[in-house]
Amino acid sequence: MKALIKGSAGPGLVLADVPDPTPRDDEVLIRVRRAGVCGTDVHIYEWDDWARRRVKPPIVVGHEFAGDVVRVGSLVTDVKVGDRVTAEGHIVDGRCLLCRTGNAHVCPYTKIIGVDRDGCFAEFIVMPATNVWHLDDKISYDIGGIHDPMGNAFHTALTADIPGAYVLITGCGPIGIFAAGICKAAGAARVIASDVNDRRLALAAAMGADEVVHPDKAEEAVRRATDGLGVDVVLEMSGVPAAIHQALALVRVGGRVQMLGIPTTAVPIDFATEVIFKGLTLYGVVGRRMYDTWIQMTRFLRSGAFDPSPVITHRFPLDAVDEAMRVIRSGEAGKVIFEIA
Amino acid sequence: MKALIKGSAGPGLVLADVPDPTPRDDEVLIRVRRAGVCGTDVHIYEWDDWARRRVKPPIVVGHEFAGDVVRVGSLVTDVKVGDRVTAEGHIVDGRCLLCRTGNAHVCPYTKIIGVDRDGCFAEFIVMPATNVWHLDDKISYDIGGIHDPMGNAFHTALTADIPGAYVLITGCGPIGIFAAGICKAAGAARVIASDVNDRRLALAAAMGADEVVHPDKAEEAVRRATDGLGVDVVLEMSGVPAAIHQALALVRVGGRVQMLGIPTTAVPIDFATEVIFKGLTLYGVVGRRMYDTWIQMTRFLRSGAFDPSPVITHRFPLDAVDEAMRVIRSGEAGKVIFEIA
Amino acid sequence: MKALIKGSAGPGLVLADVPDPTPRDDEVLIRVRRAGVCGTDVHIYEWDDWARRRVKPPIVVGHEFAGDVVRVGSLVTDVKVGDRVTAEGHIVDGRCLLCRTGNAHVCPYTKIIGVDRDGCFAEFIVMPATNVWHLDDKISYDIGGIHDPMGNAFHTALTADIPGAYVLITGCGPIGIFAAGICKAAGAARVIASDVNDRRLALAAAMGADEVVHPDKAEEAVRRATDGLGVDVVLEMSGVPAAIHQALALVRVGGRVQMLGIPTTAVPIDFATEVIFKGLTLYGVVGRRMYDTWIQMTRFLRSGAFDPSPVITHRFPLDAVDEAMRVIRSGEAGKVIFEIA
Amino acid sequence: MKALIKGSAGPGLVLADVPDPTPRDDEVLIRVRRAGVCGTDVHIYEWDDWARRRVKPPIVVGHEFAGDVVRVGSLVTDVKVGDRVTAEGHIVDGRCLLCRTGNAHVCPYTKIIGVDRDGCFAEFIVMPATNVWHLDDKISYDIGGIHDPMGNAFHTALTADIPGAYVLITGCGPIGIFAAGICKAAGAARVIASDVNDRRLALAAAMGADEVVHPDKAEEAVRRATDGLGVDVVLEMSGVPAAIHQALALVRVGGRVQMLGIPTTAVPIDFATEVIFKGLTLYGVVGRRMYDTWIQMTRFLRSGAFDPSPVITHRFPLDAVDEAMRVIRSGEAGKVIFEIA
Repeated sequence: MKALIKGSAGPGLVLADVPDPTPRDDEVLIRVRRAGVCGTDVHIYEWDDWARRRVKPPIVVGHEFAGDVVRVGSLVTDVKVGDRVTAEGHIVDGRCLLCRTGNAHVCPYTKIIGVDRDGCFAEFIVMPATNVWHLDDKISYDIGGIHDPMGNAFHTALTADIPGAYVLITGCGPIGIFAAGICKAAGAARVIASDVNDRRLALAAAMGADEVVHPDKAEEAVRRATDGLGVDVVLEMSGVPAAIHQALALVRVGGRVQMLGIPTTAVPIDFATEVIFKGLTLYGVVGRRMYDTWIQMTRFLRSGAFDPSPVITHRFPLDAVDEAMRVIRSGEAGKVIFEIA
Repeated sequence: MKALIKGSAGPGLVLADVPDPTPRDDEVLIRVRRAGVCGTDVHIYEWDDWARRRVKPPIVVGHEFAGDVVRVGSLVTDVKVGDRVTAEGHIVDGRCLLCRTGNAHVCPYTKIIGVDRDGCFAEFIVMPATNVWHLDDKISYDIGGIHDPMGNAFHTALTADIPGAYVLITGCGPIGIFAAGICKAAGAARVIASDVNDRRLALAAAMGADEVVHPDKAEEAVRRATDGLGVDVVLEMSGVPAAIHQALALVRVGGRVQMLGIPTTAVPIDFATEVIFKGLTLYGVVGRRMYDTWIQMTRFLRSGAFDPSPVITHRFPLDAVDEAMRVIRSGEAGKVIFEIA
Repeated sequence: MKALIKGSAGPGLVLADVPDPTPRDDEVLIRVRRAGVCGTDVHIYEWDDWARRRVKPPIVVGHEFAGDVVRVGSLVTDVKVGDRVTAEGHIVDGRCLLCRTGNAHVCPYTKIIGVDRDGCFAEFIVMPATNVWHLDDKISYDIGGIHDPMGNAFHTALTADIPGAYVLITGCGPIGIFAAGICKAAGAARVIASDVNDRRLALAAAMGADEVVHPDKAEEAVRRATDGLGVDVVLEMSGVPAAIHQALALVRVGGRVQMLGIPTTAVPIDFATEVIFKGLTLYGVVGRRMYDTWIQMTRFLRSGAFDPSPVITHRFPLDAVDEAMRVIRSGEAGKVIFEIA
Repeated sequence: MKALIKGSAGPGLVLADVPDPTPRDDEVLIRVRRAGVCGTDVHIYEWDDWARRRVKPPIVVGHEFAGDVVRVGSLVTDVKVGDRVTAEGHIVDGRCLLCRTGNAHVCPYTKIIGVDRDGCFAEFIVMPATNVWHLDDKISYDIGGIHDPMGNAFHTALTADIPGAYVLITGCGPIGIFAAGICKAAGAARVIASDVNDRRLALAAAMGADEVVHPDKAEEAVRRATDGLGVDVVLEMSGVPAAIHQALALVRVGGRVQMLGIPTTAVPIDFATEVIFKGLTLYGVVGRRMYDTWIQMTRFLRSGAFDPSPVITHRFPLDAVDEAMRVIRSGEAGKVIFEIA
């Protein structure tokens, strides 16, 4: 089959012919229709420090996708050929303390598709049946193909108490944009979204953010909206040190900061004034809660309260990978997807 | 001043001239503009068993209102003459274990205006300053006058986990109707509302219920919407024994039943099958959380996500009390309010 | 092998020779050393209404046990021959909404060993590997054999907020007795346990209950300990209608009632005064949380904070089943176990 | 009266004669019997940067105390002359969003006795009646005088889920030592406490810590106790940057770090690996929850499950303030108290 692979240590991805994968008894084979491109894929493409330490070539890249089941292993009972599906890309051990207490999203034995084993920028992928998630008939492959990052946004937003809350979202990449729509659909009283990029702010506004601002205007917007007290919840989606400080400054005393954005360097925190004396709660967001987040996401899509369609701005075939990467890095894109079949 | 009073033990209410009330040092005097009529007032009007045991005539009746502050006691610092306000009608001791742990709504020393001390069906009412709640400029006296029952609905809905939930509301009196709108605004995936009264169902639909049904169709509606599993949350707003059994039957295993409706008789519960083996959580709703619920309510009104206006169907002057009571008892009304000044 | 079976519809259990069970690929075969006798087994022995509706003879009875793994299926990776183990007796589907959100204890597809499939009053039992729970070296087979009911007690106690709480336990069967010890070990400020049976009260006291009383003295004990306010938490372990009413009466406003005891008839509840106006939370306890409860239980045993040994009062071989049943029904027993190998 | 005052900007405290304070109508006058000396007092004594910015001389210092009520204002109803009391030293506005939602501990308008208004290192202090906390007859003035820091420890420990938890306490000042005892009394499966000071470790062990270690042995102790997974909860009580990093490293994935210790400088945090990818929750601890923490503390003292007596190692009269400060700074002390009357 055709697949985008990291063939050897170094920058770039190559569209290559690789053997079709074969499902084990508890796995299924899926024909990939759509696959979302994530910042993680950009890191692997660029072969940055993180990628160099984590990824072992050769490997098929990509971890967000939707498609059709074309074969099922002998032990699989609840997925069948022809099912329209997406999948949780974190493959967990299912037996550790975390998995056994409803916290599989932080299973220490997690293998991620496209990072630790072959991924989805390919015509076919094998997945454990337990990771497969069925798509409602009304959900397109496009939307199915971005369940992974939408799920990050649902996890980040809905592990805070959103109904009636004032929310600040720092960073309007695709996940921040999704989160704006989710928070409004979940009854946030006011969503302020900040980013340096006007196209991204426009997308956040299109998804329902009440106010979109450049970071240097975020403080003023928050003060005005909250009588100076600060927002109840910040969703930190940028990983930018200045945004992290702003998150800690603009959340109200006793508030909550959900941390998803990944800083590339250490950030000096003045715990006394930024965290402790404010009585804050900080929460580190990993993946999607398995499978509470997936159920919530399906429910929001099913009810129509949340429609992520405007966030998909670019579509490419697999062989346009360089152009896809360029578009993402330029900041002109919302969500970029590969159309594969 | 003019006031609707229960002058002596027996049915009915009388519009009488009574002395203007005088605020203590920590109280304020409020000119009442609008006052909502509640089922509790109907019980007092009818002088039923509960009323006979609880209410000591003579007393001014009524506990839902909005108006303008016209005088403030010497110790009052954060309410001033001219403020547009409503108020929490449960006057608590502020010192007991419940008050001191954020649970003042169940303070055992609660005095309720219009039940235990003079209420708001009058030109003026005195309230402790701590019970006063300011109205945003954009909120009308009409809406201000029904904050108490809206607050019941917010308390009932938002102490469950509503974003993404399937919700059944059994009973579409005004509070049930409010709750339908609140649940949708808070991201419920589907709200099914049941009642025997088609006018009430129409109001619930107008507030956003996805499906409104007679009780004999509720099971089918729930089964269809939830693949037979049952809803995540039931808001029991009727107090009808058959509805309580239906609530326990139609909530899914591990689900939550919020109980607000007050049955007038004991209801035989088969705890084994109706509660325990289903692993349910039941929660008894009293008043409004003080003041979490009020903050949430104000936020939903401010954002425009929730507009209770359609629920107000009838307006009367105080001297039309008999007609107001007739309309409520007929079942043809949503929320009925007195226009006082 | 030898096994206690319900061979046909009707009272009694028979020690019979039955074929050794064979594990499937994902199951293990366990040699049973100890097995606890539960009230459920008594119902099956007596062949009461519930048993008649639920149990399909022939079946090996019993669901609480500990033993040694003697064979493992080909797919089993984390249980091996020679392991000392007990097991969760609720076999769940692992794929439903409940299983996928950390709520497998209420999986609607649960099969219980000894009730829905062959149980543990036998020389051998097969169990899915995922249900197996390893015993620390220091934990005896005796203690291992009663993990199931201890787990009920841990689930009931630790899903309430116990540190610093005033707790009333209504009903001192083995699970209530365990709960007394658990609550003390978890920092309950005062545990009052009630039962009609003095031997059971003595066991509750031995496990750490601060005060043990007959039910007709429970109100006085609670009033005295709590300045008349009521306890924070009641663990209802009896299923006796009078005890349920007492639980609802003696819990404080805003308190929590954990319901484990199974009434055999409907109990008329005055929801207005017993539940709603008190702002109570009721929680129906099913089995053990999978596997949060098991982890907590293992931790309490490991630390030595909780030692259930005094609760085991009688030991019998399998062929003394009639005597075992007699002892349990007489009320003279704490926990009764079979010594099998 | 005699009082230890910071008379002017600069190091040291002076025992001076100052006018007796006079209670307002809603305040009470308390004769101080015992007063605890806190690290905050040391900062004020030393006149460090924080003290210079915050404290406005002249002011009576000290915020931990117990004594007898000797006069009550005209509006005070539930405190009377002769009551044995301690008090919450954070005086809050009672009207802000935080105060009105059970979160007064982070009221932005907090005034702290001994920091923002006259404190308790004196023969008398005035306190708002709402801040007064009654002592059980069996609780000594010594213990009453250290309720404030004990309350910090209860807040830190009991806002985590302690029953059955593995806990690491980094930093064994008095609050860390208290926390060791609280965690054990609340059912922690294992408490590991670390500090560089052997006397403090000995006190932590005396209070019940299962294992006490120097920081360089903490990792090994945690790994051994938790099969390498990490502890469920860390109570960070030191404020030392290395300890904060260790807290984040030794808590398990999905775990919780309670932050009480105040670093004096910014700490560079690698959020990716230290917080986000681990899915941690961090919680900043301010004061005592008002008054949930006080109720829990009273309950633990009343039941005898927690006895802080061993932590009090030194007693001084007010005029030995320099010696008291020396002892604290030497690291040889547990809790130091002033005996005043």
